[in-house]
Amino acid sequence: MATFEDIGAAAGTNILFAVAFLTAFAFLRLQPINDRVYFPKWYLLGVRNSPSQQGSFLTKFVNLDWRAYVRFLNWVPDALTMLEPQLIDHAGLDSAVYLRIYLLGLKIFVPIALLSWAILVPVNWTNNTLANGGPSAKLQYSNIGKLSISNIPYGSPRLWTHISMAYAFTFWTCFCLRNEYAKVAEMRLHFLASTKRRPDQFTVLVRNVLPDQDESVSEAVEHFFVANHPDHYITHQVVINANKLAKLVKLKKNKKNWLDYYQLKFARKQSRPMTKTGFLGLWGEKVDAIDRQSAEIYWLDKEIAEERNRVTSDPKCIMPAAFVSFKTRWSAAVCAQTQQSRNPTLWLTDWASEPRDVYWDNLAIPYVSLTIRKFVVTVAFFFLAFFFVVPVSFVQSLTNVDRILRRAPFLKPITEVRFIKSIVQGVLPGIVLKIFLLVLPRILIMIAKLEGLLSISALERISASRYYIFNFTNVVLVSVIAGTTFEQPDNFLQQSANDIARIIGVSITMKAKFFITYVMVDGWASVAGEIFRLTPLILYHLRNSLLVKTKKDREEAMDPGSIEFHTAEPRIQLYFLLGLVYAVVTPIFLPFILVFFVFAYVIFRHQIINVYNQKYESAASFWPDVHARIIYSLVISQIMLIGLMSTKGNRLSPLFLVVLVVLTIWFHVFCKGGYEPAFVRYPLQEAMRKDMLERATEPSLDLKSYLQSAYIHPVFKNGEELLPVPC
Amino acid sequence: MATFEDIGAAAGTNILFAVAFLTAFAFLRLQPINDRVYFPKWYLLGVRNSPSQQGSFLTKFVNLDWRAYVRFLNWVPDALTMLEPQLIDHAGLDSAVYLRIYLLGLKIFVPIALLSWAILVPVNWTNNTLANGGPSAKLQYSNIGKLSISNIPYGSPRLWTHISMAYAFTFWTCFCLRNEYAKVAEMRLHFLASTKRRPDQFTVLVRNVLPDQDESVSEAVEHFFVANHPDHYITHQVVINANKLAKLVKLKKNKKNWLDYYQLKFARKQSRPMTKTGFLGLWGEKVDAIDRQSAEIYWLDKEIAEERNRVTSDPKCIMPAAFVSFKTRWSAAVCAQTQQSRNPTLWLTDWASEPRDVYWDNLAIPYVSLTIRKFVVTVAFFFLAFFFVVPVSFVQSLTNVDRILRRAPFLKPITEVRFIKSIVQGVLPGIVLKIFLLVLPRILIMIAKLEGLLSISALERISASRYYIFNFTNVVLVSVIAGTTFEQPDNFLQQSANDIARIIGVSITMKAKFFITYVMVDGWASVAGEIFRLTPLILYHLRNSLLVKTKKDREEAMDPGSIEFHTAEPRIQLYFLLGLVYAVVTPIFLPFILVFFVFAYVIFRHQIINVYNQKYESAASFWPDVHARIIYSLVISQIMLIGLMSTKGNRLSPLFLVVLVVLTIWFHVFCKGGYEPAFVRYPLQEAMRKDMLERATEPSLDLKSYLQSAYIHPVFKNGEELLPVPC
Repeated sequence: MATFEDIGAAAGTNILFAVAFLTAFAFLRLQPINDRVYFPKWYLLGVRNSPSQQGSFLTKFVNLDWRAYVRFLNWVPDALTMLEPQLIDHAGLDSAVYLRIYLLGLKIFVPIALLSWAILVPVNWTNNTLANGGPSAKLQYSNIGKLSISNIPYGSPRLWTHISMAYAFTFWTCFCLRNEYAKVAEMRLHFLASTKRRPDQFTVLVRNVLPDQDESVSEAVEHFFVANHPDHYITHQVVINANKLAKLVKLKKNKKNWLDYYQLKFARKQSRPMTKTGFLGLWGEKVDAIDRQSAEIYWLDKEIAEERNRVTSDPKCIMPAAFVSFKTRWSAAVCAQTQQSRNPTLWLTDWASEPRDVYWDNLAIPYVSLTIRKFVVTVAFFFLAFFFVVPVSFVQSLTNVDRILRRAPFLKPITEVRFIKSIVQGVLPGIVLKIFLLVLPRILIMIAKLEGLLSISALERISASRYYIFNFTNVVLVSVIAGTTFEQPDNFLQQSANDIARIIGVSITMKAKFFITYVMVDGWASVAGEIFRLTPLILYHLRNSLLVKTKKDREEAMDPGSIEFHTAEPRIQLYFLLGLVYAVVTPIFLPFILVFFVFAYVIFRHQIINVYNQKYESAASFWPDVHARIIYSLVISQIMLIGLMSTKGNRLSPLFLVVLVVLTIWFHVFCKGGYEPAFVRYPLQEAMRKDMLERATEPSLDLKSYLQSAYIHPVFKNGEELLPVPC
Repeated sequence: MATFEDIGAAAGTNILFAVAFLTAFAFLRLQPINDRVYFPKWYLLGVRNSPSQQGSFLTKFVNLDWRAYVRFLNWVPDALTMLEPQLIDHAGLDSAVYLRIYLLGLKIFVPIALLSWAILVPVNWTNNTLANGGPSAKLQYSNIGKLSISNIPYGSPRLWTHISMAYAFTFWTCFCLRNEYAKVAEMRLHFLASTKRRPDQFTVLVRNVLPDQDESVSEAVEHFFVANHPDHYITHQVVINANKLAKLVKLKKNKKNWLDYYQLKFARKQSRPMTKTGFLGLWGEKVDAIDRQSAEIYWLDKEIAEERNRVTSDPKCIMPAAFVSFKTRWSAAVCAQTQQSRNPTLWLTDWASEPRDVYWDNLAIPYVSLTIRKFVVTVAFFFLAFFFVVPVSFVQSLTNVDRILRRAPFLKPITEVRFIKSIVQGVLPGIVLKIFLLVLPRILIMIAKLEGLLSISALERISASRYYIFNFTNVVLVSVIAGTTFEQPDNFLQQSANDIARIIGVSITMKAKFFITYVMVDGWASVAGEIFRLTPLILYHLRNSLLVKTKKDREEAMDPGSIEFHTAEPRIQLYFLLGLVYAVVTPIFLPFILVFFVFAYVIFRHQIINVYNQKYESAASFWPDVHARIIYSLVISQIMLIGLMSTKGNRLSPLFLVVLVVLTIWFHVFCKGGYEPAFVRYPLQEAMRKDMLERATEPSLDLKSYLQSAYIHPVFKNGEELLPVPC
């Protein structure tokens, strides 16, 4: 354990970093040249335009108005003043509900922090266990230890305070969770009821269409739904495997951009721009650039036309899946929620996602392949989560200088410089770990794609679950286990259940300082870094000066980004977990978590209002996951407390805590039954109400033409527009 | 371990018992007086009538035809000749599929037995580990041990044979399971498609109707379904709390029977029969019996009429639940599978069970109460399953003679007789255990009722699951653990995961003899006892001579019974579990299991054809449970094998077996997705097809009048008929 001074120093450093980021942000965001980096959302909404063309050349790039600098902290109230309904209109329900996770953190932890400081801290402080423990104990434990449960003597009746606090914290957390679940479910239903007509309200995705020798997929779908939903079926759109076509179209767009660029250059300089035929124009024969691009586009056009023909006519390109649309929301809801065929692996129906949320590549995976993929991915993720340390330390061992020299002796003269050697030795392993961690979300998304999920939102949701498990095993458990007898996995299996709980429970109190530092680095400084947007800032200016040729290019150079749900949410969950684990054990931990929640809430609210552009809208369908993970954290914290209590000489306390675990799990089951259906199914009553309303207000609506082309593969939709890049 | 002689002796005894039962059955069933005991199914079907009135008085009771005795084993081919489709017509799909469980046991275990005797037995036999192990080993292990895995030396490469056999057995079992699941699903769908019109095909049970101040439950239901299923709703029937009325009606029926009896007596003897007013007519004032019964019936009639009025008019008796019927099977299927209201705890819809399968008492439990009940019952069952031994041994300790004497010293003279004392000491504990075990299924059904399940079939299904768990913990685990270090529960928590697996794995080979004996006693002798029907035989003759007053009474004295799914199925599952556990470890176990499966198949087929009268028809909806439990047994057997292998010095083998466990679990997930929906949901395609067919063949069907009174509480249905006794 650390002294107050240690933690104070660490806090100081991290606050310094955070303040530096915030100051830099406050300054940079005022410069017109950065406007598209810090306010892209408003550009995309069409509310804001490039800085006015009036004024001097300088004012186009630098803000010379000193009054702006005086109010440099204005962004904070600005970020907070927008009301929630406006926020939902502005950025969608997903974003608004995402922010509620931070608020939920505050709702849960502010009362818990107050209570634990008012009751637990005095109870802990007024013991002398650590002070009386002899000089070695004094060395190990310091005044922070005095505030924690470690200061309670063995078998003291004071431990009942901690157990009753565990009950109080659990009940309070469950109370908040239940209210929040009810509120979010309400918001979701209200959102679904009040959104304007969308094609996904009428459409169901049908997979594993029964192959038939006599009829095409399209005919099979039509016959099936005319027969089984006779009064409701309206139209359908078969799914086409247009992945190759999409690639060609993308390539053509790229070539076209270059052509535009060369023509612009030619117009300015009056000399034909030249290029080389080799890789990236770096070597090879010199040719006229404009002619070359035109020729290439000509051939691409031909190829695209051919592929387009092939795709629409070749039955092999038609996948056994279709988007089936119905006359009413009611009948779409019916079809999505029922089983169609006697073979439950055929004619699988599901709600169609929003068109931009569809992950097209996975639409045609048959049932057997799907279960095998699921199995393979589960096994793969298991190894990833539990043996992640192995490849990392292997690669780290490869970066050992002596090893490198054995392979590449010609590097010897360089590595003999002491400075370089020490840098390589000291920094490379850290960089290797960082690279692995940066790549992780991509790996998780990749294996989720392999698993065969059908929408981008589902990909992100499952990746978030896996990231949470990964965080638990590789951040929490590894840190807790480090330094205990479990470092050898063999040892782990040889310990009894009692010992495992005990060792982890005790170790967790010792690691409080480490996690406090973790919260400050990852929760304070990194979050401040998020608002500073260093990478998009650099990339935008690079693109702007090097690549931007047209106004459209400038639009595209702008990278608003989005809430990366699959990385951001598990991070919050880690703080929930740590907060719940330490609430009873080391109350001093809680203020650090609270600072994170407040700070992150303000910053992400600002980002959502001004920066992020969501790729899809899932109407908060991620909430059941968020809720479940907080419950898991609660249970984990209770189990760790059981382990800790079993070393404290109070034989009854583990029993009381087991009861608490059982009650918590029951609460989870209760909430799952009571609220989850609102996120998975669409109640017929709501559908009917909306249908009635629409029929009354727009009696002459031509729904068929509205739905006809809603789910055409994006490559066919707007001629040759760029595909939305998935994730 | 035991010698062949030990096992031979045990087998001899049990075969003797079985043969005795069978001979007694073969003799008794030929006597006309027992006809209603051994062939009640045919009486209920109306095919058979009381023994012919011709012939002498004697031939009415005793069969004097010697030829019948020569063919006394004829019942076996008789039981086997009925084909499965006829069996389904005769006894329903539930019974036919129940028999398939025994057949499945044969399909799985015959090839496994052949393979293990052909390969494993020679591999085990040709070692000398046990023979070389010194005199103590010779004492413990004998020639049966030589056939088991215990005879393989530490670290021998021969262990790979056992591992590959474990793979082979698992794959074979999974193959059989998958085929059987597909076949049963097919049979179920065919059965549902070919059964004639039944009210439950059109009806949905709605619970948690939203209470409304302005309208009655009936109006609320009508308004809701007219609004949300406008073209499909036809009629509904609210659920009425008529439990008290049902009790009164039952009482009246009883009195009426007595009245009939007394009138019969009066007519014969010409003197007014008298009775006493006290308890059971044993003491009190003497009165005229006929007058007394008539008066009581008169008052009961008044009370019933009053209660009937109250029930139908008092809104408090109307529960917030209703059976809602639709115009087509398609729309009932839609309503049962979809969510109706935005609050998922209101307007819950479910398939209505068959009218005779409905468990009326539980129809009105609200959602919150339901989750609490579920929680309480789960906790209660947990304690029942894991601490069942505690009350049993407590009561057993109470039956200690010295203890009894301390409480009741006046018994001293009796207990001083040595013979009585030894009987009390020796037999009472066994009787106590037997009583507890006999009461167990009733306890399980009782807690299932408490849980709030809605149909008798669901009650039996969940009780069967719990009985299986109970068997696993209290028969298998307790027997395996007996004699190991785990007998103290504290010890268990102090062992490491490795040790637990090892100790259980090793212990299981030592307990082979115990389980072989168990199979013979419980599987051979008891099953033979089933066909003998001792209890119904005695009860029928008692009732017949003492109570039967009218012909209707005789019908009722006949107690055909039914397959007690909640006790019989877990028993089969125990054999699956033991068979799978011992298949690799001690192949000599398998023939005993095979004998059970053959024997039980024949006997239960006979009983189903001639005796049992099923209380309901659930169209084999129990199959997913049967399938899942065999998979659990498979996984348990693999885990035990891992424990055993970890003591055999082959470090790789546990890893290989873990892979097998993972594959098995994946297979389970695969089957669950592919076949379970056929047992839970009703495909729209099937519903539509059957609707079309009906519309074509019976265009003028008045469905409304057909459905109007299908789900009226049985007490209102046929005037004052007796209620079907649940379970």
